[in-house]
This record gives sequence, C-alpha cells and structure tokens, in this order.
Amino acid sequence: MFNKILIANRGEIAVRIIRACRNLGIRSVAVYSKEDAKSLHVQLADQRICIGEGPARNSYLNMDRIIAAAENMGADAIHPGFGFLSENSEFVRKCKENGITFIGPDADVIDKMGNKSHARKTMMDAGVPVVPGTKEPVYDAETGKKLAEEIGYPVMIKASSGGGGKGMRVAANEDEFEFQFNMAQRESANAFGDDTMYIERFVENPRHVEIQIMADSHGNVVALGERDCSVQRNHQKLIEESPSPAIDEETRRKMNEYAVLAAKTVGYTNAGTIEFIVDPKGNFYFMEMNTRIQVEHGVTEMVTGTDLIIEQIRVAMGEELSFKQEDIRIKGHAIECRINAEIPEKNFMPSPGVVQHMHLPAGNGVRVDTALYTGYKIPSEYDSMIAKVIVHAPDREAALQKMRSALDEMVVMGVETNLDFQYQIMKNQVFCDGKADTGFIENVLKIKG
Amino acid sequence: MFNKILIANRGEIAVRIIRACRNLGIRSVAVYSKEDAKSLHVQLADQRICIGEGPARNSYLNMDRIIAAAENMGADAIHPGFGFLSENSEFVRKCKENGITFIGPDADVIDKMGNKSHARKTMMDAGVPVVPGTKEPVYDAETGKKLAEEIGYPVMIKASSGGGGKGMRVAANEDEFEFQFNMAQRESANAFGDDTMYIERFVENPRHVEIQIMADSHGNVVALGERDCSVQRNHQKLIEESPSPAIDEETRRKMNEYAVLAAKTVGYTNAGTIEFIVDPKGNFYFMEMNTRIQVEHGVTEMVTGTDLIIEQIRVAMGEELSFKQEDIRIKGHAIECRINAEIPEKNFMPSPGVVQHMHLPAGNGVRVDTALYTGYKIPSEYDSMIAKVIVHAPDREAALQKMRSALDEMVVMGVETNLDFQYQIMKNQVFCDGKADTGFIENVLKIKG
Repeated sequence: MFNKILIANRGEIAVRIIRACRNLGIRSVAVYSKEDAKSLHVQLADQRICIGEGPARNSYLNMDRIIAAAENMGADAIHPGFGFLSENSEFVRKCKENGITFIGPDADVIDKMGNKSHARKTMMDAGVPVVPGTKEPVYDAETGKKLAEEIGYPVMIKASSGGGGKGMRVAANEDEFEFQFNMAQRESANAFGDDTMYIERFVENPRHVEIQIMADSHGNVVALGERDCSVQRNHQKLIEESPSPAIDEETRRKMNEYAVLAAKTVGYTNAGTIEFIVDPKGNFYFMEMNTRIQVEHGVTEMVTGTDLIIEQIRVAMGEELSFKQEDIRIKGHAIECRINAEIPEKNFMPSPGVVQHMHLPAGNGVRVDTALYTGYKIPSEYDSMIAKVIVHAPDREAALQKMRSALDEMVVMGVETNLDFQYQIMKNQVFCDGKADTGFIENVLKIKG
Repeated sequence: MFNKILIANRGEIAVRIIRACRNLGIRSVAVYSKEDAKSLHVQLADQRICIGEGPARNSYLNMDRIIAAAENMGADAIHPGFGFLSENSEFVRKCKENGITFIGPDADVIDKMGNKSHARKTMMDAGVPVVPGTKEPVYDAETGKKLAEEIGYPVMIKASSGGGGKGMRVAANEDEFEFQFNMAQRESANAFGDDTMYIERFVENPRHVEIQIMADSHGNVVALGERDCSVQRNHQKLIEESPSPAIDEETRRKMNEYAVLAAKTVGYTNAGTIEFIVDPKGNFYFMEMNTRIQVEHGVTEMVTGTDLIIEQIRVAMGEELSFKQEDIRIKGHAIECRINAEIPEKNFMPSPGVVQHMHLPAGNGVRVDTALYTGYKIPSEYDSMIAKVIVHAPDREAALQKMRSALDEMVVMGVETNLDFQYQIMKNQVFCDGKADTGFIENVLKIKG
C-alpha cells in the first residue's frame, strides 16, 4: 500500500487524483509552479511543494525537480495525470532509478507505442487492423511514390517520430506526391531530427473512436467500451461520448477485442487507450495508443460504474483489477463537454482572467470535474480547459437534453468561455443525429478549427 | 405532456425538481416568500412568483395563493416536493377542482395512509406485518390495560391522529399504564381534537428501514430497495444509506414484497415510501407510509441508476413506469449525510446566517444536492438543512471512506454546520460496524437528541 502519492500535474486532473488518494486513505502531495500557488489542487492536497515557475519546462516538465520533490516529501509513487510527463519514458526510468513507483506502464512499453511507425508495425504483426500503408520505413520520395500507388490515393505521408500534426501531409494524387513527401520529410528532420517516414491511405473525415483498457501486472486486460471523440478543433477533442452512435454491436465487440489484443501484445499494464479511426463504411483502423489516463476517462466511468484513477493506483501497487471483462456492462449514455476559457469566434483564442462569479450544474447524473472557484485567476501559461461537464442518462437523447440543461445552468463570469458554443453543438441537428465526424466543426459549423 | 410545472417548495428540493423539469423539456415556475427572494430556486426556474412572506402558513402553506399562482402562470401541474403541502389531501383536492395535476397520489389514498391507526388496520388486513397491538380504536384506560397485558409490556400508547411525537407515551409496566394512557389521551385531545388511541408493543432501539416504491396509473408497482435511516436526532433523520447493513437478503426480499403489497392494497400511484422498524432479532413491522418523495430519495437513485423525480412527473402525465421490477438491481452502496446549519453541541440549535465562502466536494460518485451559493443568506424561518452530500461506491467500506473524503473537503464559512459531527459519525466504530440503531445519537454519542 502506498503511503503517499505525489501528483505531477495541475488543475482539474490533479484535483481528481487527490480525491482518489483520499478515497484510498493515501496521503497526497501537490507540486505547483509559482503561477499556480493559489490553485485548488494546491489547497486540497495534504502537502504541497513549489517546483519552479512557468513555462512548464521549468516546473511541471522538470523531471529532476519533481523527483527531488517526491524524495523530499517521502512520496513512494508519482501519478503523472495526462500531458506533461505522462508519456515520457525517460521520466519513468528516472522514477524507477530513484525507487519511486510511476503510476502508469513501463518505460519500454511507452517507447514501443510512442514511435508511431513502430507501433503501427507491431499492431500489423499482431493482426490488429491498421490503415492500409507501408510496413517498413520509407526514406526517399521515389520509393514512396511506388508504394503510394499500391496503397491508392489520397495518401497521408507521416513522420515516424511525429506528433501534433508536424511532418504530416496529404498527397491527393501522383502529381503532388514528391513535393508533399519532401516537405513532410524536411519538417520531420527539423522538428524531430529524424527523417524516417511512412505512408498510409488517407481516410477522409473519419470518426474518432477509442477503446479504454485497464491492465494489471497479473496478465489481466479488460476493455471498458468505447468513447466517440469525433468533435475536435485543431486536433483537440471538444466532446466525448459513450457509447458511440456511429458503430454497431458487432463493430463494438471487435474493437474491444482488438484493443485487448493490442495491450496484451505489448505487455501493457495500467490505464491505456487504443485510438481507432472509423471510415464512413464502418471499417476501423488502429491509429495510436495513449499510454496514460485521458481527459475523457470520466465518460467511461459513468457508463461502467468504475473508478479508473483508483484502479490505476491499485494496479500500480501490484493488485489485480477489481473487475473482470464479464463485469463490464455499458449502462446508459454519457457525454462530456470540455469547457474552455476561449473565444470560439476568434479561432478559439484563449481567454484567461479572474473568475468573478460562478455557478456549477449538479444533481443526479451530472458531474463537473474542475479546479475553478470564485476568485480564481485562470493563468495564461497553461491549457485553456477549465472544466469538464459530464452527464449520464438512460439513453443518448436523454443525455443530450441533460447536457443542454447543465450547460444552460452553468455560469462562469469574468472570462469568455465556449459554453454557448458547446450548447449550440448540443442543439445541432447533425450532432444530435449522431452524424458528426472529425470534420464537423470545419464543415458543418463552418468554423476554421 | 406537461407544458409547465409549478414547484410548491423551496431550497434544494425545488432546485432538484427544476433540474428534472429541464431534463424533460418542461418549463418551471418557482414560488417564493419574500425571505427567499434571492434563493437559488428562484434564480434557476424559468419563471417565478412571490406568494407572500414567512411564516410558511402565509406562503408555502397557503393553498389558495399557490393555486392562484399556478393559474396565473399557466402551470398545468404542481410538484409539492416534501414537507409543506406534500401530504395535504385538501390541497390535492383543490388542485383537481382547478384542473391542475398534483404530482403525487390521489387525495383519498393520502387520507387512507395519513390516519395512522387506519393505515395500521389496512396493512394488518392485507397481511403486512405490523407491530403487535390493538386493531380497534381504544377510548378508555381500563380497556387499554386489558389489551396491553395481551400485547405484553413495554407498550407504546399512540394517538390515532398523532404525529411529531405528540400523544405518544411508553408504559413500561402495568403500574404506570393508566397514568401514561390518560396523559397521552389528553395530549391527543388538545393537539388534534381527537381522543382515539391505539396501543402497540414498544420496540426498543429499533432500526429504521424503509422501502422506496414507484407506482403508475396502469397498475404497475415497483420496489426500489431499502434505505436504512436509523441515525436520527429528535426523530429527524441525519444519515441514510442503501443497502441496509442490518438486514439479510431474505428479509430484504420480504420487505420489498410487502411494500409492493402495501402500495397495491391502497391503489397507490406515484412515489411513496413504506417505513418499517426492524427489531434486534431481525423482525420487521410496518410503521407508516410517506405519500410523497423523501429527502433521502437520492440514495436510492445512486444504487438503482434511476431518476425518481423524472419518474414522478412521467407517472403524473399518465405514462407507464420506465422500469420493471426485474430491471431494478442494487449496485454498490450509497450513503447520504444531511448537512444542517446547526450546532450539534448546543442541542442542534439552528445557526442561520450568510455563507461567506464555500467549497463543495465533487467528482466520481459524489453528488451534492444544495441551494447554497457564496453570499447566500440562510434564513432563520425554515428548516436548517442546507445540503445533502451523497456518495456512491462499490461497497459500504469504500462508501464510508468516500463520505469522509467528501465531508473533509467541504467548506461552508459564515455559519455553523454539523459537518464535523457527521465526519465523527463516519469514523465511529459502532456506525462503521453497521450497528447504529435509532438510539445511536443518544446512547452511543451521548448527545441528547
């Protein structure tokens, strides 16, 4: 049993983890930057320690300071949350070297899944469907062009070490292939110091559907159903729901099975997510694995009645999963709206500032995960997400109406938010019909996202 | 489908009902006294109308003003919440006369169950176990004494029209019977203008266990499991949980069946609760039926995944229940702590005032039903309950720890509350062992309640 856990994160996910620690009777240590001194996670934790100031590389991304803080405070484990150091295998190794348990998968597994072309090859070998494309690395345009013809246009040219849209280009046909390949390769070399490329068929406006898995160190892997995260802006998710309105029972069953297979293939432990894209015909393909808890994990908790953060901590202590695959039954429908301090009409420009007044929705089947409080100054240094409103109802229609009620009730004064924007989506016919794909914001709402 | 519902109540239950209306797309009308002008329920409702000032008889208990308000605002139904007019059959009849649907059972059914000796007789005839005692009214001490000997001492002498502890006296033995009977009868005559008495065996320190039922107008009655409400002060519940740690599966099954039988016997519709007392040997007896939604309904919602207020509204519209008996499965364990603005050490003296600052617990499996907000002035005119903290976890031990975490996190500054007192109970060995009976506050905590 851990005695004390350091939370290497901030904001609502830090609050979420602190609450899970309390529920397990484990003491919690908050780390914080100077900008975050008055943050809720700092106030709620049992202990707190300042680890520097913004930008994040001097605090929340500074491995040595966080390890030193854990040692000074006597923490025997670190929960990384999401973002920051949560998928950094070097940090995981440093934790191990210093005798601190990292609450997440092993460093080697993170490495295996972190390199996208490597992960893709591993999944292909295991029999998990991947987007048709190259299996071996591609280093020059000429070879690439031949392979692209076999795959069929349009194709997506991707950097093996890629991320955040860098080193990623679409070639619509043979004529533009060479130009786009060279551009992507140059971007990759500049951004990641690596010019290894791979090529996939380009799936236009797919749905983004992901499977939550939990794995313990005793070989048990359980899939907890899917989340549909198709509504995105600038490749950032805005709305997540479970179950997905886009897939049928047979597809659902297969995706869950492939997710378990993917996790078992790499010897995965702890919480993870297998991200798939689903094309308009219902074909699905492995995209990548996130080797950490995700922002949208609450959606799965609502429909499965589980507590994934508590489960993460238990698994990291060597316990077996508290549930078996047959215990997981999806009950009702859950939707999450990410509430950001931003101005949707101005290209989602962040809107930091002081929360002058606020009122949060609540009640039966309404959950708000947030670190907001009246008087809190939302800093400009970090992500603009300030709250996650999650609702749970017997079916999708009731969940939509519950979300409208919740968004309508919520008040945040002093900063601009996307509350109205989210409310409009909850009333949009395409979204309500379950037809929103990843192009929804741009193609339906006509907002450049 | 109702177009608009008037909520004839205030505080957190009014907020709860307004949210349910929103979830159904039905407009809501709040009524309020002058003292409540700035209350949350007034702000959240779609429309609002002042119906007078405190005390309650001039506002929330004033039937004609409430009916007039409903007519003026064009409401086609009234939800009474609990307390105030919720069990007043005269009000129910007035609603009907004015073409307004009362969201609750028929007036005749309320009358049937409102008279305690009548209800007792009805239940005896139907075969529902009642505390051994007299079946016919008792009018004089001499007859009573003979009957008391048959029943066996100690006995409880009760007024047929009784309530709130008035006209209720224990006789420990034959010697004191006459004195106690005459006292009780005089109290009853003075308080209720009725000297009809009945006599029951006195069950010492029983558990209070009640069954939630829902019934529609198509003859469907469903039992939603029990709530254990044994922890009380001054006959007011402080903590409720489901399932009860005091009963076994067989007893649970029987109590649920008897509750359904009780409801069917009187032709009950809408939400109701059959209250039983359970003696230390596990024998249970019908005590009374509450013909309305109860404060503690959220506990049942958490373990059954239902929404009882939405169900109440739907049933009042003539719909069938949305669930059948076989759909009801109790999942996990839920506990509710009533948070009161009061001073437990000073005989639970109310502590009204302005909420200077507050922070509410939240997160996975934590629900707070409240009408509090920062700056709100808790009035002295009404009940001291200011919030209900409800937790849901896989088992009782996890629920206890979750409640401790939630109470520990909750902050209400500006008024005294029973937060610490509730926290102490959550750590008390007798309570944690599931052994608290209705004498717990007085006998274990040694607080005169």
